[in-house]
Amino acid sequence: MRPIITLLTDFGTADGYVGEMKGMLLSLVSGVELVDITHDIPPQDVHAGRLTLARVWRRFPSGTLHIVVVDPGVGSDRAGLAVTSDEHILVGPDNGVLSPALLMAGACAIELPVPPSASTTFHGRDVFVPAAAALARGEPLDSLGVQARDPIVLRTVEPVRDADGSLAGEVILIDRFGNALTNLIGLRGGTIEVESTQIPLRRTYAEVAVGSPVAVVGSSGFIEIAVRDGDAAHRLGLTRGTRVVLRTSR
Amino acid sequence: MRPIITLLTDFGTADGYVGEMKGMLLSLVSGVELVDITHDIPPQDVHAGRLTLARVWRRFPSGTLHIVVVDPGVGSDRAGLAVTSDEHILVGPDNGVLSPALLMAGACAIELPVPPSASTTFHGRDVFVPAAAALARGEPLDSLGVQARDPIVLRTVEPVRDADGSLAGEVILIDRFGNALTNLIGLRGGTIEVESTQIPLRRTYAEVAVGSPVAVVGSSGFIEIAVRDGDAAHRLGLTRGTRVVLRTSR
Amino acid sequence: MRPIITLLTDFGTADGYVGEMKGMLLSLVSGVELVDITHDIPPQDVHAGRLTLARVWRRFPSGTLHIVVVDPGVGSDRAGLAVTSDEHILVGPDNGVLSPALLMAGACAIELPVPPSASTTFHGRDVFVPAAAALARGEPLDSLGVQARDPIVLRTVEPVRDADGSLAGEVILIDRFGNALTNLIGLRGGTIEVESTQIPLRRTYAEVAVGSPVAVVGSSGFIEIAVRDGDAAHRLGLTRGTRVVLRTSR
Repeated sequence: MRPIITLLTDFGTADGYVGEMKGMLLSLVSGVELVDITHDIPPQDVHAGRLTLARVWRRFPSGTLHIVVVDPGVGSDRAGLAVTSDEHILVGPDNGVLSPALLMAGACAIELPVPPSASTTFHGRDVFVPAAAALARGEPLDSLGVQARDPIVLRTVEPVRDADGSLAGEVILIDRFGNALTNLIGLRGGTIEVESTQIPLRRTYAEVAVGSPVAVVGSSGFIEIAVRDGDAAHRLGLTRGTRVVLRTSR
Repeated sequence: MRPIITLLTDFGTADGYVGEMKGMLLSLVSGVELVDITHDIPPQDVHAGRLTLARVWRRFPSGTLHIVVVDPGVGSDRAGLAVTSDEHILVGPDNGVLSPALLMAGACAIELPVPPSASTTFHGRDVFVPAAAALARGEPLDSLGVQARDPIVLRTVEPVRDADGSLAGEVILIDRFGNALTNLIGLRGGTIEVESTQIPLRRTYAEVAVGSPVAVVGSSGFIEIAVRDGDAAHRLGLTRGTRVVLRTSR
Repeated sequence: MRPIITLLTDFGTADGYVGEMKGMLLSLVSGVELVDITHDIPPQDVHAGRLTLARVWRRFPSGTLHIVVVDPGVGSDRAGLAVTSDEHILVGPDNGVLSPALLMAGACAIELPVPPSASTTFHGRDVFVPAAAALARGEPLDSLGVQARDPIVLRTVEPVRDADGSLAGEVILIDRFGNALTNLIGLRGGTIEVESTQIPLRRTYAEVAVGSPVAVVGSSGFIEIAVRDGDAAHRLGLTRGTRVVLRTSR
């Protein structure tokens, strides 16, 4: 089987940065399978990159190599990392974007040296692609650098249980459909309160009328707020950080 | 030859839903060739998804498998389908998006069961990818479910011939360039009337001056309205459904 | 190794034009590796397409075939080209978009005939894909057409040295991050003057405070103007063509 290498960036594709990375990769190692995860992470949004990585990385087969570049600190003294975790390999900047892999038991992180010839603005091409190519050719992780001492790990904030038994959380992401993903773990039954609006928690979008707000347990197990056939974020004024409260039925 | 699996969705790529589907697919069946058609269908726009599918599916080699997910009804009781048609296989929701394949003589549609563990918001990952993987591994279509009784078929509206011999149609899609694709079958010669504007039907964009409106027979055989080196939809106020009349020369 | 074919267009993906090209390619030649460079070149922006091509084409392995379609003149009498240059092959319209390859010593360009059946609006599908497929199957370049006499070559404007030793150039591209790429070749040290603003030339973005303007030598060797963790184009009012002056330290 051909080794799989995925790409997850905030580069867009129009400027050619991703094209350069693909060309370099295919020049450095042949017979690999390139898979685009996305290049549409909002520019420099490490938080969004981390959440998208969390959703996808373990869906791929064991042995997959993920290149993750959302890198506002490029050229500073932030380190670059190569990480093995749960039979996957990841490379990317040490700014928290690789947290989903670093948080797993048994994860091992190596600090990647920056070659003197590297551009100060594009480590995707000059640090992470060469590291990924070396790993895809079978070079062992620890031949690439020294162990990283204390890689940055970001976590999604935990909801808080209030005295009355309700659970106070927040919106952590707005998706393309305007659905607001929260940090509330899904139960079935109850009500989501956003400011003074009460939104019923249902099993599917289709259990409310078209145009009505509804909360459901989303595909990653967290509660999300939607408007049936509509855009909940726009309609209800939801943004990342909006406080949401889950009141379970009694 | 490696089996080809195409992906056509309205998911965008940033949120990782497409990444999850790709990872699942490559985990469930090895040695396939993933091809992105698009993930930029406007959210929940079944009509646009259907027209894009119509344009592309038969361009691929026989045996290609198309995963089509534009699915506002996910989690409701709308069925999921697997369809064989003209030596291609398609999977997707039973909401009309698969119409181009269902309309072919000899098409055969199976209703896909929803596993109890499936998310109610993401059948792309939990119903359509597993079905596609099974089909790519060579499992026969009828092992996946029972025959679908009456799948939903959507058709592009037909133009109407008026008493004076003119043909009244409408704009069915605005493309990225602002060209307005109509349901008028192409002839050469004549005039397209949009409200009170007369637009000449020419062989190429280049037969009018830069900035001028022109109608041409587009690459799928239908008449489209353009502005040379400009954006016709913006300039002429065209949207899906705008009435257009073809008057042939006499 | 499977032959690599890259795609660089201004088509977007939603309308299915790119999907048609991919399907045609895979029908005409099997066992090739399709690689998306981008489909997000701004519509009809030959200049942007040329700069993106310049950045990427030689990063790919020898033998790679690049299909480049940014083609406002489609259907006019502009020619179509197939070009061999530096062990790569390129096909696309003769409007300057292929200049990076045409400018190399030893480049050879063939004029592609337009089949009578070709659409007048979509040579990507009807001229360039068939030519690319023929070349990928190993047909020799000169079997496809006659030598092109005088293909259009566009060049990035050169900066001008003023009497006081400063170098006057301009912004040639705004990237997705709002960085303004200039035509000034990178030195280290000095100041970039934009209107009355003085911007320090530094080694990395990180050498100025968050929110401050900074000039750096970008990853293709030209000076670019950025705002640390911000959008320089928006903040400083930069657009393509904005005059910028490099004053070196004395």
